[in-house]
Amino acid sequence: MATLIVFEFPSTGPFGSEAAGAYRDLANDIAEQTGLIWKVWTEDPVRQVAGGVYLFRDSATASDYVAMHTRRLEGFGITDISATTYEVNEELSRADHAVLSRPGN
Amino acid sequence: MATLIVFEFPSTGPFGSEAAGAYRDLANDIAEQTGLIWKVWTEDPVRQVAGGVYLFRDSATASDYVAMHTRRLEGFGITDISATTYEVNEELSRADHAVLSRPGN
Repeated sequence: MATLIVFEFPSTGPFGSEAAGAYRDLANDIAEQTGLIWKVWTEDPVRQVAGGVYLFRDSATASDYVAMHTRRLEGFGITDISATTYEVNEELSRADHAVLSRPGN
Repeated sequence: MATLIVFEFPSTGPFGSEAAGAYRDLANDIAEQTGLIWKVWTEDPVRQVAGGVYLFRDSATASDYVAMHTRRLEGFGITDISATTYEVNEELSRADHAVLSRPGN
């Protein structure tokens, strides 16, 4: 069953196009993550937070990612990391145009 | 700029296939929501919460939806509704396979 993760953590930036430059290599690395269907990169410069919403093909690959990405963020000096995991209701999500699979993954 | 919303609220169910039956009409209604690109329906029967992650084409349609959907949920007797809004970093998200648009919307 597809599994969704919401990550949020404090961030003073970069945001927007500056982030797109700074994190391009990281995004390319995440694109190859086992089990990943997609990630949406999220940010709120006013609240000073950043994060991401991830869809994984199953709970095992999602759980592995939470552990690995939390360690990676901590390695960047980031604390107060929130990672919330949900089961996905695939039938209702498909009715609302959600993309739940990716060719070759 | 695409805008993402994370809704979460307490729920004792239905979940899974029972929810898919109970909320089919609501999902079809949400599918026509102005500005909606997609919604992923989320649930956690263990924590007893449900919700959704929504991508909207811009902050105005997202904001309108938060107000309307909060009223709708309250009409169902749901309280303790959390709705968190984020800006989307479209360039980084596209690198990670995210679908950020929908034909005709």
